[in-house]
Amino acid sequence: MTTTVGIGLLGCGTVGASVADRLQRDRERIVERAGVSYCLRAIAIRDCMKRRPESLERELFTTAARAVADDPRVDVVVELIGGLDDAADLVERALRRGRHVVTANKDLIGTQGPQLRRIAESAGASLRYDAAVGGAVPVLRILEEALAGDEILRVTGVLNGTCTAILSAMEAGSSFEKALADAQRLGYAEADPSNDIAGIDAAHKLAIIAQTAFGAPLLSPQIPTKGIRGITQADVANARSRGLRTRLVASLERTAQGVRASVAPVVLPEDHEFARTQGVENAVQIDARAAGRLTLRGDGAGGSATASSVLGDIVAVLRTIAPAASILATA
Amino acid sequence: MTTTVGIGLLGCGTVGASVADRLQRDRERIVERAGVSYCLRAIAIRDCMKRRPESLERELFTTAARAVADDPRVDVVVELIGGLDDAADLVERALRRGRHVVTANKDLIGTQGPQLRRIAESAGASLRYDAAVGGAVPVLRILEEALAGDEILRVTGVLNGTCTAILSAMEAGSSFEKALADAQRLGYAEADPSNDIAGIDAAHKLAIIAQTAFGAPLLSPQIPTKGIRGITQADVANARSRGLRTRLVASLERTAQGVRASVAPVVLPEDHEFARTQGVENAVQIDARAAGRLTLRGDGAGGSATASSVLGDIVAVLRTIAPAASILATA
Repeated sequence: MTTTVGIGLLGCGTVGASVADRLQRDRERIVERAGVSYCLRAIAIRDCMKRRPESLERELFTTAARAVADDPRVDVVVELIGGLDDAADLVERALRRGRHVVTANKDLIGTQGPQLRRIAESAGASLRYDAAVGGAVPVLRILEEALAGDEILRVTGVLNGTCTAILSAMEAGSSFEKALADAQRLGYAEADPSNDIAGIDAAHKLAIIAQTAFGAPLLSPQIPTKGIRGITQADVANARSRGLRTRLVASLERTAQGVRASVAPVVLPEDHEFARTQGVENAVQIDARAAGRLTLRGDGAGGSATASSVLGDIVAVLRTIAPAASILATA
Repeated sequence: MTTTVGIGLLGCGTVGASVADRLQRDRERIVERAGVSYCLRAIAIRDCMKRRPESLERELFTTAARAVADDPRVDVVVELIGGLDDAADLVERALRRGRHVVTANKDLIGTQGPQLRRIAESAGASLRYDAAVGGAVPVLRILEEALAGDEILRVTGVLNGTCTAILSAMEAGSSFEKALADAQRLGYAEADPSNDIAGIDAAHKLAIIAQTAFGAPLLSPQIPTKGIRGITQADVANARSRGLRTRLVASLERTAQGVRASVAPVVLPEDHEFARTQGVENAVQIDARAAGRLTLRGDGAGGSATASSVLGDIVAVLRTIAPAASILATA
């Protein structure tokens, strides 16, 4: 059986362009890893005039995103538009038609994850979103796979690099405003950083972790969330003078009363795993009954790191399609 | 389609007893995670008189290990005997009969991994050995799955807790001999710690990492390996006086000339990720082209941590059997 899996991309910003470019240029290695051949069928974009990687032929591009999600030659839809407006509609549409979906959209999964998983399940489709949490740090994959036979007790982490960059700069003497402006200039913060600063971005990620670790239908708006807007240079300097660093920490715990989740700024001893984060780095600690404590650290944002995680999910989906014949033989 | 997957256990030491106990007592959660029902059919042991967990019925136990590997009701063989003598024969035997195999045996995979994978492949069987490297630290899973779409450049790590425990004690003033005796008394070192101290244990693990990260047919005897036997209290104290700590570090790198691997004691600044390891902790750094640097840290040994990893592999195998129907529908 020789199958060629059709892939359709929605969005071609920093992450999307990097994913598309790698799908074309690393084809040989990816096909070998996945065990199945694939073809990039179409890339939905907004702006026809923007410059794109040279590896991508002009004919791939279209402004008709719905047509890509509906295309019968597309088996896997990779959604990298982000946000809730178009992305939510397109992902739901693709899943209802039985398309496998890979997305890095934390807003979408953080607010509609349980519902989208139900749609995927009843359509027999995969829905993967590893890149939505932790960038290249494979938090969800470890919770879902490595610890599949264990019991997760607690997950805590520094999940928002923008806040870390701002707080680090404030520890070095900047005001909040200057630290924010610098983070934007350096590309650590987006043009509209309000979700990052208010802790909403971290809450989306924590909700997704709760859904994965505990099967809890927790949505991000339900998480008590405090951002870093109210923190002054004096607060940060005062903590530093006591050997402490300030970080935005997301916490999740299974208790007798159910799952307890929160996002808030926390002061930490400077040799603490979370205090050691710099810039876009994310750090996560997972406590499991048998495994004990696992600590993970790595790039939590950036086009390249996020693209690595999206490609990992694409390979995972390709693998579920690839080995059908051999699985049948052993079942 | 309702399938019940038969599981046979070879070995019931610390790890085996913990795995068997959890398979019986956490059945509901594991079945839910795996998507398929299972039945523990038999447990092969050497000593009939030894005390076993109460969750395990007497009828499960047998001293006929070959009969377990051959049992037609056993679909998944979990090898936790360790070493090369019986284990190698039993694993090969099970694979040739198309049984899926889960093992924590680093000696076996480190010296015969490529050959066993070929046998598994031609028999259409899975061979999983996550617990052979890093204990509960999911190094192999991350290399193989999370980074499946990326290019691994370099993997380094502290992979042997016995050496860390001995070197830490020497840094605190112990002689090598006293540190070793203490590590044995505390359960960090085995009765025969020669493989740990000579770096051979770390070399097995590094070979398995090379096989996974680079698809390289590297075997542990091919790796230049230097252990910690020759290190004196004076060496360690001298390093400490310069703010350095000594750790046994395993390194693996892809170069233009091929894969370069080595195991040797290294001195490191005390805030280095590897210098911060204590006791049985393992720490691993993975450098990938797109993902950047990932750092992992956690319990690298101990019955409970290793059992968590073995159970993760059992769930992974169960999942490949479980969803055959739905995969077919979408393929």
